Amino acid sequence: MSVAQMTRPTMNVTVQSNIDDGPAESAADRHRYDAHALRDLTSRIVQGYGLSAHDGDVVADVLSFADTHGIDSHGLQRFQLYDAQMGNKIDPAAQSEIVVDTPVSTVIDGHRRMGQLNGRQAMDMTIAKAKKTGMAIAAVRHSCHYGAAGYYANLAAEQGLIGFSVTNTEPAVYPLYANDVWLGTNPIACAIPTRPHAFFFDASTSVVAYGKVELYSKQRKDLPAAWVVDPNNQPIHDSTDALGRLMRYDNEAGLLATGGNSEYTGGHKGYGFSVLVEFFSGIVSQGATTDRTAVGDPVEGISHGFMAIDPRIFGDADTILRNFSEYLDQIRALHAVPGKRIYVHGDKEAEAYEDRMTNGVPLYHKTVAELRGICDRLGISYAGVLDH
Amino acid sequence: MSVAQMTRPTMNVTVQSNIDDGPAESAADRHRYDAHALRDLTSRIVQGYGLSAHDGDVVADVLSFADTHGIDSHGLQRFQLYDAQMGNKIDPAAQSEIVVDTPVSTVIDGHRRMGQLNGRQAMDMTIAKAKKTGMAIAAVRHSCHYGAAGYYANLAAEQGLIGFSVTNTEPAVYPLYANDVWLGTNPIACAIPTRPHAFFFDASTSVVAYGKVELYSKQRKDLPAAWVVDPNNQPIHDSTDALGRLMRYDNEAGLLATGGNSEYTGGHKGYGFSVLVEFFSGIVSQGATTDRTAVGDPVEGISHGFMAIDPRIFGDADTILRNFSEYLDQIRALHAVPGKRIYVHGDKEAEAYEDRMTNGVPLYHKTVAELRGICDRLGISYAGVLDH
Repeated sequence: MSVAQMTRPTMNVTVQSNIDDGPAESAADRHRYDAHALRDLTSRIVQGYGLSAHDGDVVADVLSFADTHGIDSHGLQRFQLYDAQMGNKIDPAAQSEIVVDTPVSTVIDGHRRMGQLNGRQAMDMTIAKAKKTGMAIAAVRHSCHYGAAGYYANLAAEQGLIGFSVTNTEPAVYPLYANDVWLGTNPIACAIPTRPHAFFFDASTSVVAYGKVELYSKQRKDLPAAWVVDPNNQPIHDSTDALGRLMRYDNEAGLLATGGNSEYTGGHKGYGFSVLVEFFSGIVSQGATTDRTAVGDPVEGISHGFMAIDPRIFGDADTILRNFSEYLDQIRALHAVPGKRIYVHGDKEAEAYEDRMTNGVPLYHKTVAELRGICDRLGISYAGVLDH
Repeated sequence: MSVAQMTRPTMNVTVQSNIDDGPAESAADRHRYDAHALRDLTSRIVQGYGLSAHDGDVVADVLSFADTHGIDSHGLQRFQLYDAQMGNKIDPAAQSEIVVDTPVSTVIDGHRRMGQLNGRQAMDMTIAKAKKTGMAIAAVRHSCHYGAAGYYANLAAEQGLIGFSVTNTEPAVYPLYANDVWLGTNPIACAIPTRPHAFFFDASTSVVAYGKVELYSKQRKDLPAAWVVDPNNQPIHDSTDALGRLMRYDNEAGLLATGGNSEYTGGHKGYGFSVLVEFFSGIVSQGATTDRTAVGDPVEGISHGFMAIDPRIFGDADTILRNFSEYLDQIRALHAVPGKRIYVHGDKEAEAYEDRMTNGVPLYHKTVAELRGICDRLGISYAGVLDH
């Protein structure tokens, strides 16, 4: 939660987000901004909606984690969404409620607090329980967008535990061979403490996350593969057209699940993982599955899941984690396809973190303009932070 | 373990295996054989290697589960592999050893017993612990091929619990952008008790399992998509060529991870899930990761992982599981792409089970010939079972 934490030498990181870092990093597209200053500004903006300084810092920590680790789709470019939801989908005055509390499990009703606050509470409780019992699990209902799933998994890894987090989202994905938008992008994140940085897996169960389509639209680039299809399973390549159709929620487009639009390429696998995410978020919490997250007034909200496992329940944790670190080093050293580098999950984010803590966080002009507009409306100064 | 269990009306089921059931079911290719008779014969064959009647029944139950549920790649067509490994990779006289035993966790050294025996022991212990503590986990090292991962997950679902199982395998898969065969096909299975049959997800983290390439080769069909690539990431379409290269282990071919051969199609996701399977099997058990399973004399053997969760730790289990059943029914009823049906994971296997318990299990001529040869060598009668 502190700046000290953000500057620790051991870094943790998502491959999901970084697949287009090349073009996205071009200096012409983005200016760089100081990570600490952005984090402070984010907390002040959150407090501008009436939340406490503590809560502002929690939300800022989650967003800063994403921005500093190259998970651009889940950093400050998301803030426009939170601003639009504040006071309707998000209740800035809400308090959460613990509805199940056993030695190994927690269920929280988030009462539509900001998702970051519910997520942090649930994962902190899960980590504490796993340290006592060996493993623990949690689910949250009636929540809101909680940022990068990997943030919560990483909280466990920072304390020597194996962490998992999943969340459902708003409807965006066609189940295989359906053309009703029904499933969320439903990420699965896992972090495991290793050297030199955590193994960090954070992947939507769709081919890409919603935010990736947004990023391509902001960059005015065509989608490079079959990420979004029309109701006949035909790919849509124009990113702005695809995004527009997705945002109208009129079933004229859907993201594909990981594996694509046929069983022959494994589309049933992403679809199956996505349903598992629905189970461990919306079903076990007795909240809303993705298809019902936007139903009602106030809306039902989304649901999250969390798990932590203490590696000591398998034996000597140091040996286990050292063996895993060595195993990952062996993968990094394999022969590569000509012209390619072999990454382990977390490597790209660790490199992004090193770069961005030194050189600043790159933000798109559009994102900066959105943040300035929010600050102006709330009467918050961004002087010294978003000047250029 | 009993025939009664096999004929119960509630069935549990893998989408993974059934994607080519259409052509594979053609009467010209396969005769049908009585499921109970095959199961009995399988147990007698296993006993022919010197194993006990109990152990023979366990192995037969696992293989029969696959064959009766349409998971053809992991049924009796696997037996040739077991026969070839018996006495070298598989030690028919071995006993397993429990090396970690806590209220929530188990680690077993399988001492190269047949994988089904180690898997069944580990999952039975995990189910018993989860019933007491709410959730439990296990890992097995120094084991052998254990059949369909979903069998073990399903044992939990039959008792009202959520079950998981994973296993590593022999090397078959290139990590994304590597051209050393390093990872296994590494399936992830999960079963959840629902009506009218369990939600049953059992998917290799490669585009397809190894056995699927074998099936296509037996059928002399080309691979229908980019399942296997050469060291330059180029797809190999001839199934017999692909299988031959995979079986030579000379790095001249590798299966792709789910998501394919690029980050743009999600190849890093299947690769990441595959590494997680290595962690929860070979790493936490302090056994062998896939790359080392065939090292040594005797070989290190493969590793498995298991987990069970009691849904009562989230609240009223009946409500939770009823809600999930209704949710899955809603998916089945969505609008479909023209000409397609929407399946929920487990539907195809439930239908296969109903058909095969009534009409018999279809086996390829090649599989029947293999089984007859084994019986002849061991002096076991297959009269009345494999007559045609």
